Amino acid sequence: MASPIYLGVVGVGGVGSAFLQQLARLPNAPQLVLLARSSQTLRAPAPAYTPALPADWKAATESAGVTQSGALSVAEMASYLAAAPGRAVLVDNTSDPALASAYPTFLRQGVSVVTPNKKGFSSDLALWKEIFAAAAQGDALVYHESTVGAGLPVISTLRDLVATGDQVTRIEGVFSGTLSFLFNTFAPVSSTSPAAPWSQVVSQAKDLGYTEPDPRDDLNGMDVARKLTILARIAGLDVAAPDAFPIESLIPAELADLPSTADGITQFMARLPEFDSQMAAIKDEAAQQGKVVRYVGSIDVATQQVRVGLQQFPQDSAIAGLKGSDNIISFYTQRYGSNPLIVQGAGAGGDVTAMGVTADLLKVVQRLR
Amino acid sequence: MASPIYLGVVGVGGVGSAFLQQLARLPNAPQLVLLARSSQTLRAPAPAYTPALPADWKAATESAGVTQSGALSVAEMASYLAAAPGRAVLVDNTSDPALASAYPTFLRQGVSVVTPNKKGFSSDLALWKEIFAAAAQGDALVYHESTVGAGLPVISTLRDLVATGDQVTRIEGVFSGTLSFLFNTFAPVSSTSPAAPWSQVVSQAKDLGYTEPDPRDDLNGMDVARKLTILARIAGLDVAAPDAFPIESLIPAELADLPSTADGITQFMARLPEFDSQMAAIKDEAAQQGKVVRYVGSIDVATQQVRVGLQQFPQDSAIAGLKGSDNIISFYTQRYGSNPLIVQGAGAGGDVTAMGVTADLLKVVQRLR
Repeated sequence: MASPIYLGVVGVGGVGSAFLQQLARLPNAPQLVLLARSSQTLRAPAPAYTPALPADWKAATESAGVTQSGALSVAEMASYLAAAPGRAVLVDNTSDPALASAYPTFLRQGVSVVTPNKKGFSSDLALWKEIFAAAAQGDALVYHESTVGAGLPVISTLRDLVATGDQVTRIEGVFSGTLSFLFNTFAPVSSTSPAAPWSQVVSQAKDLGYTEPDPRDDLNGMDVARKLTILARIAGLDVAAPDAFPIESLIPAELADLPSTADGITQFMARLPEFDSQMAAIKDEAAQQGKVVRYVGSIDVATQQVRVGLQQFPQDSAIAGLKGSDNIISFYTQRYGSNPLIVQGAGAGGDVTAMGVTADLLKVVQRLR
Repeated sequence: MASPIYLGVVGVGGVGSAFLQQLARLPNAPQLVLLARSSQTLRAPAPAYTPALPADWKAATESAGVTQSGALSVAEMASYLAAAPGRAVLVDNTSDPALASAYPTFLRQGVSVVTPNKKGFSSDLALWKEIFAAAAQGDALVYHESTVGAGLPVISTLRDLVATGDQVTRIEGVFSGTLSFLFNTFAPVSSTSPAAPWSQVVSQAKDLGYTEPDPRDDLNGMDVARKLTILARIAGLDVAAPDAFPIESLIPAELADLPSTADGITQFMARLPEFDSQMAAIKDEAAQQGKVVRYVGSIDVATQQVRVGLQQFPQDSAIAGLKGSDNIISFYTQRYGSNPLIVQGAGAGGDVTAMGVTADLLKVVQRLR
């Protein structure tokens, strides 16, 4: 009874490659008919859309009988997928704001969207509303589990709570694997040796590839703010934009104007040790009260307050005890009472992020067939 | 585009009542056409199946124009739902093994099943297999999130891990709200006053309604064993039955033969204090090593070992720190590495169990439309 589903995939970076590997191992996978990366687009020839591409993207680039082209415009991609002889799905594994802003174009034409790209859901409220209106208009689906907490069941849990009529009162947690690692290392609950200064911890995280190429993209708090924006909107708050609420940046004001260039990054890392004493003071102040400092996001639904920044936590709290680069998200609701529903685990990394994308794709395929 | 979905609901106990309340508040709810409780069945007259019943079951019993009948057989219920002029769903809010064993009858006729009833999924392996084969044959769906951890996303998370190709290596946790409460109270991590003896804690839990009417139905470990059986099967282990692996019963052997009658329960509670010193010794042994004792279930997928019973945990572990009657479930997988994916929160109670049922129903409706 199952009719074929036609799949377009954009992005072959860390998440994109992991997703394509998972796709290749799925039984009854949808047919990959479009694969785009920055330099090239491959597509199966219309109108039959066969032969489909192999999910192994390196093999796909050498696949005979498929149309190779330069970078297609998003409008061209949308038209191509919309004209497939069956339901189509776009999987956007980029963090491209331009592609995200074109989701309504895909959705209005009946092309469903699955993505870990936060941009479409955490930018202007108008785009958020347009995306879901376009999905309804095109009878298409939008799934974006991996935009918060990677493969952890965060978005789906919150949507279930809301859809079944529970009252979500507060959401709180550590939403950045990078900042989780930085503070778990800088201010561990129990340590046998004194922890390294802040700048050294940042440098270590950068060397391990735990930060963005420019660590300021983690330290400015915007990634966490985008995730909070998404959750707050699902919980019913009309957050206008990801900078519409207080965000505590960990970039020293004196270094805020260094350019976003390789040279600017080098200068930033070189000058960061000047501010180690400031971070040490923040850590010591918490320690004097038997607490540790962590970088958290919180949403108070009743008072409509969203904030992102440093907070102190008791050493025996779940947030203080977090390990490695784990995320933890606590949902306080009317039904769950004083003890929240908690989801915890790795919230970043190619494999687990791709897992969220693949699981979403399977749900979309189930609903479209 | 949405075609109507016809709903049959069995059971109006704690979970059933909470479910019907949630159903009544859903926008675009499926049409309730059959409502059965032990003494009575209400159904909308075939073949049009209108007027549908109100989701308020007390109003439904007084509703004019609906056919009232004595208890229908499960075969009659299945035929009635299968003949509806659209897709139909059975919601089984009982713990009835007879109804559970009839799921294949519903599914083969195209009636989907949503339920918190563990019996169908945790009894003989043959029934488990028959259920999913019947669903495939009838192009029907089976959702049972609330069979483990109530509304917590446990089943869905495990299914996503497996479906996307992750290797689940170990599942471990506290799966009983009752036993969580008993041990969190009996052996708290930090206490200002000495905890009460075991028999008093059991008595208190019984008075609060946290145990089954016969507390031995919690203390025998079978409820946890049934949940472990379900998770192990989803993880790929062919567990033959819920008593096919070691289960440590907390019922003293000397009291095992007391009858399952009101008098038997009274005798059991009266004699339980005789065994307080045994439980105190178990608690003290753990305390001497700086640990606490907890009642847990674990599945080692690689060695195919499933076990249920007492274990000692460090005081700073997540399992030791559990509050109230919370459940905690840790999934260790290849992708998640050494830090597991953790789900934690209330794992029992009418509202949160019904929430899992309602969320499942919404997913089924989405897929059937």
